[in-house]
Amino acid sequence: MADIQPFHVMDLLARARALEAQGRNIIHMEIGEPDFTTPAPICEAARQALDAGHTHYTPSLGLPALREAIAGFYADEYAIDVAASRIVVTPGASGALLLAMGVLLNPDDRVLMADPGYPCNRHFARLLEATAVAVPVDAQSDYQLTADLLAERWDAHTAAALLASPSNPTGTLVAEDALQAMADVVAARDGRLLVDEIYLGLVYEGRPRSALAISDELFVINSFSKYFCMTGMRLGWLVAPEGYVREIDKLAQNIFLAAPTVSQYAALAAFAPETRAILDVQREAFRARRDFLLPALRELGFVIPTTPQGAFYLYADCTRFSDDSYAFAEALLTEAGVAVTPGVDFGVNAPQCHLRFAYTTGMDALHEGVERLARFLA
Amino acid sequence: MADIQPFHVMDLLARARALEAQGRNIIHMEIGEPDFTTPAPICEAARQALDAGHTHYTPSLGLPALREAIAGFYADEYAIDVAASRIVVTPGASGALLLAMGVLLNPDDRVLMADPGYPCNRHFARLLEATAVAVPVDAQSDYQLTADLLAERWDAHTAAALLASPSNPTGTLVAEDALQAMADVVAARDGRLLVDEIYLGLVYEGRPRSALAISDELFVINSFSKYFCMTGMRLGWLVAPEGYVREIDKLAQNIFLAAPTVSQYAALAAFAPETRAILDVQREAFRARRDFLLPALRELGFVIPTTPQGAFYLYADCTRFSDDSYAFAEALLTEAGVAVTPGVDFGVNAPQCHLRFAYTTGMDALHEGVERLARFLA
Repeated sequence: MADIQPFHVMDLLARARALEAQGRNIIHMEIGEPDFTTPAPICEAARQALDAGHTHYTPSLGLPALREAIAGFYADEYAIDVAASRIVVTPGASGALLLAMGVLLNPDDRVLMADPGYPCNRHFARLLEATAVAVPVDAQSDYQLTADLLAERWDAHTAAALLASPSNPTGTLVAEDALQAMADVVAARDGRLLVDEIYLGLVYEGRPRSALAISDELFVINSFSKYFCMTGMRLGWLVAPEGYVREIDKLAQNIFLAAPTVSQYAALAAFAPETRAILDVQREAFRARRDFLLPALRELGFVIPTTPQGAFYLYADCTRFSDDSYAFAEALLTEAGVAVTPGVDFGVNAPQCHLRFAYTTGMDALHEGVERLARFLA
Repeated sequence: MADIQPFHVMDLLARARALEAQGRNIIHMEIGEPDFTTPAPICEAARQALDAGHTHYTPSLGLPALREAIAGFYADEYAIDVAASRIVVTPGASGALLLAMGVLLNPDDRVLMADPGYPCNRHFARLLEATAVAVPVDAQSDYQLTADLLAERWDAHTAAALLASPSNPTGTLVAEDALQAMADVVAARDGRLLVDEIYLGLVYEGRPRSALAISDELFVINSFSKYFCMTGMRLGWLVAPEGYVREIDKLAQNIFLAAPTVSQYAALAAFAPETRAILDVQREAFRARRDFLLPALRELGFVIPTTPQGAFYLYADCTRFSDDSYAFAEALLTEAGVAVTPGVDFGVNAPQCHLRFAYTTGMDALHEGVERLARFLA
């Protein structure tokens, strides 16, 4: 447990809440969930499930109708054929990652992942007594792993590599040719590639493609939390190669029993046209926020070398202002009234030089936040 | 993963459903969840949470109001003082057990548990690369561990012991003096005692006491699934010694983020008098079922040496009919149309001699089930 770090942003969030309780106004640019509430048709489906008495356990792999609906989503949205039998409904993407790592990793196995990256990914590996190997990445590769990096860092103990596209904290994508090259490197070494696509629904340029388009041998993790705005429902999914599903079912039976039932019925409404219409408006709102915040932060002197194409994060070099981003984040909170996440939450690759800005608050708040930053930094 | 067993009952359940799809009528005495749907006031609270837009993440330790409500439940129901700060709301009791074991066990640590016992408990330890030591128990100790057994089996690698009161599959309790003696043995060895109380609300004789009455140093696991009939809400809780809460919070942040939000708001209504009135009627229904089924099974020739005081299970020796309880369970399903759980799901202590009967179905079905058994065994 000593190796498991807290989210430092949680401490900052607690301090922000304490300041608010004292009457201070704080602009929140640290929060990793959509500010939008769950779309009404999804909430209505949840109410109907309650009315119908759907309050018992579902099968461990998830409601059959939801697994079919997710398969339908891959067909409609990404034009790929994913068998419903390969789709496992999980308690959040966290549950999906735990299941995938649980069936793939033995103690002392190594799993390669980008640094900066989402910190929980390291800790799942640690919980299973495997080793997360943080591979430093930078703007040259859009903050993503590459085939060359995987080939260089892979050793006899390495079992898997984990990508995230779009990435948290950088919002950058893995290009499809880069993904194919990485899949080839990993397959040649008899390893497994895991791809976190929980922000794939929030991509602002072009038409995103799922990694499942290139291979049925990948493990792909997704979630109803971000694009579908269902964080509190705690629901995600895992797409696994067919041969792993039985093992995943056993593990899910034992460690979760099943994902929340009302959430699963609610999610059946997530793919309906009236829901998608709401979600697409909200995606446009996120895009507009990015299009405001990115140039505004650059103008202030933050360095964001590559334009993030997705998620709702900007990962900014703040060395023009500070070589201690944690202290800088504290000062921004207490002196400027702007809460952001220090780089230390995302790894050990120059975290002291970086902050993550989340645009999970409305445009008025973002404008006010930028004005506060401008005054503070002037 | 090769060490992680499926629930064999799931295979039987799947076959039962297949038989039903062919038009066969099956009496279900294998299912480990209440047949009652979630009480109306709890569902109404869930609806109100949706209406109010409570769809975002809660703090990792749970909604403060729910932690307070659970503390109030300990005060009202068990007359003990448990600080809300020690209560962690979890995604099911599964989540509580994973957190407790996660902060307590290092790889190769041993944790003692009764056999027969709930199989997932072993698998959580295995997932963390610790070792579950199955200690055979029998009717002489009401199928519970004892201070003597703990003292005998404790070694330098043992970190903890896990009790369940009432037990799944036997429905038996740990007596308070036995609990105190076990707590003393464990404390003297600098170990930790975990107590699973997920069936504590379903005790039919006397007034049950929580293990928390004897010590603040125990880890106690509970759930909204069984007594509160909220299985599909996937909500439980852990009471931990104060000094562990920070570590548990870190782990929960990383592996769950938080328990489902709507479920947590719903659970606020679980302690209301109108809900408790419904639940107490349902508890009486379970008691009446036990009072019918226990003598009926004994009459048929099943040996149930000790009267189970709680939960909704009877663990029966079936050696008068078969020395292969798995094959016997299959025959009961396919030939008699009665689904039960074979002993193999509960450990390696003479599982071939035992079946678990769950009285999670209505009295009419239980009568019909007993008649079918009588005809089959005649």
